[in-house]
Amino acid sequence: MKGKISLAHGDGGELAHQLVREVFVEAFGHEEQARWDAALLPLEGGDVAISTDSFVIKPLFFPGGDIGKLAVSGTVNDIAVSGAEPRFLTAGFILEEGFPVEDLRRIARSMAEEAKRAGVRIVAGDTKVVERGGADGLFVHTTGIGRLRPDRRLHPEQIREGDAVIISGTIGDHGIAVLAARGEMGLSPGLFSDCASLSGMISELLSSVRGVRIMRDPTRGGLATALVEICEDFRVTVQLDEAALPVRREVRGACDIFGFDPLYLANEGKVVLIVAQEDEEKVVKLLRGHPLGREAAVIGRVTGREQGRLLLRSTLGSTRRLSRMSGMMLPRIC
Amino acid sequence: MKGKISLAHGDGGELAHQLVREVFVEAFGHEEQARWDAALLPLEGGDVAISTDSFVIKPLFFPGGDIGKLAVSGTVNDIAVSGAEPRFLTAGFILEEGFPVEDLRRIARSMAEEAKRAGVRIVAGDTKVVERGGADGLFVHTTGIGRLRPDRRLHPEQIREGDAVIISGTIGDHGIAVLAARGEMGLSPGLFSDCASLSGMISELLSSVRGVRIMRDPTRGGLATALVEICEDFRVTVQLDEAALPVRREVRGACDIFGFDPLYLANEGKVVLIVAQEDEEKVVKLLRGHPLGREAAVIGRVTGREQGRLLLRSTLGSTRRLSRMSGMMLPRIC
Repeated sequence: MKGKISLAHGDGGELAHQLVREVFVEAFGHEEQARWDAALLPLEGGDVAISTDSFVIKPLFFPGGDIGKLAVSGTVNDIAVSGAEPRFLTAGFILEEGFPVEDLRRIARSMAEEAKRAGVRIVAGDTKVVERGGADGLFVHTTGIGRLRPDRRLHPEQIREGDAVIISGTIGDHGIAVLAARGEMGLSPGLFSDCASLSGMISELLSSVRGVRIMRDPTRGGLATALVEICEDFRVTVQLDEAALPVRREVRGACDIFGFDPLYLANEGKVVLIVAQEDEEKVVKLLRGHPLGREAAVIGRVTGREQGRLLLRSTLGSTRRLSRMSGMMLPRIC
Repeated sequence: MKGKISLAHGDGGELAHQLVREVFVEAFGHEEQARWDAALLPLEGGDVAISTDSFVIKPLFFPGGDIGKLAVSGTVNDIAVSGAEPRFLTAGFILEEGFPVEDLRRIARSMAEEAKRAGVRIVAGDTKVVERGGADGLFVHTTGIGRLRPDRRLHPEQIREGDAVIISGTIGDHGIAVLAARGEMGLSPGLFSDCASLSGMISELLSSVRGVRIMRDPTRGGLATALVEICEDFRVTVQLDEAALPVRREVRGACDIFGFDPLYLANEGKVVLIVAQEDEEKVVKLLRGHPLGREAAVIGRVTGREQGRLLLRSTLGSTRRLSRMSGMMLPRIC
């Protein structure tokens, strides 16, 4: 199968069948019990984590990844930061008439590779085609299902004063890499997105440390928005230390010129954790020992309860309150 | 929250938070353990059924339903026909900048109502916004997770000669209703889509009858495509009796004029079953006793194994082989 996607690839008939067989089943593999439209799979009882995401990133291919890799790792990370082991993934595709079949195949293979790396199986899917102009190329949707091991359950209700806030590496790489890949704002490409599945690193961490209270992947809205949500949801005050934030030189440069704040830029391969003080050194060490966490750092601390505020102590020594992102207008970053 | 969707509603910041709270949490309810971006839920162990679908139907509102009702019932039905009880649903939304918030609220409420009817909970979701012209209004993705009760497992490998093929009601209603609602081909509106969740009816059936070998919901591609897939997958030959097919007068009229074949038109509230001969009367009676199965009928029979063919005995007495749909070109029907 070559050429371009036509409306008939989406009508549920012969061509749709061929597309599934030659592109998706070819890439994702095929197991007897896993039909494309509804899979039956064994799952141990207990609590399951379920997460879903749509991906509309532009461009589809960017330094460090593509929409397929992102659609797998994005959903895998949502499951992993809840403390669960990602197990199964579903994938839905909305294709614009005229989309190159070869690009679709490349994206499907990229998803298959990333799923393998992340230890999940893509077990069911769906394809729809809209007329030319009805969508912009390709949108991907993934849903993940994971199992929560009772001995690895996180306990955000135990967050207390003195707990450390840790980030697994540099912030803002994905946001700036994608803007540069779009050729927007005259940014020169060269920076790579951090797009990666964190399930392996998080699993190693949770099997060795008990003091992880909560984790989040700071994607859209950036690190600040993810932490504001934790502060509000669990009524804790967190103070970040600006000087401790790991930011690449290229990201800082782009932010200085264009007025972005790295705290609000999207990351796609980072985890922020709140960790009991007695475990913070161990966590940083474990993260730094993993290829995806080499630049892990303690970036702040829980300074109080009952207030639900995120504070930033600047490099100049002043302290200000941070809010959720508002009005940044960086569409289609994921 | 009123007005129109802006790009800022999709950036993960303050407005995105407000949209989730005021539209989706308001409609779907909110439970402590079910966060919008990753829900943790209890599930008994055993086999689970997982299915995913994207919905790009045009128009968004049509007689008998809307994209929200369809997105819930479509995925619920995929789970139900696998023999599982649908339990959890996730929902992803891709919105075009400028989409009316009021329409989104109406669609979210419609999803909530249909989820209640179908006995499922919408437990996680996601919203993305693309710039004007980047998508056509609204696309919805749903993923469903169900539990397969061991005593209700289907046994397609037991299909044998003489088994009855049963449809739960008239075919083609959804296809023609949507074409009419689009104002295409001068069809006058008036016909209603059959869009409905079949989980309740199917659950009642499976709790009383053991002889159901396999079920499918004949959506895109219609009844013929669904049966061709069964014939190929399980190497059986099925012969349909054209005279026995329940087709509404209005659907037959539209097909006569425009050259459609009701066997290839989409249904969104029908199930086709292959049933042991000794149970066929009981199944038809049970289906007819349910509001969604009043026009259930035996429409054919398994006439052999090992061949994988679907045959149609016409009203004139001749017999021909049916293929998957090919080249019908009815885009955005679901």
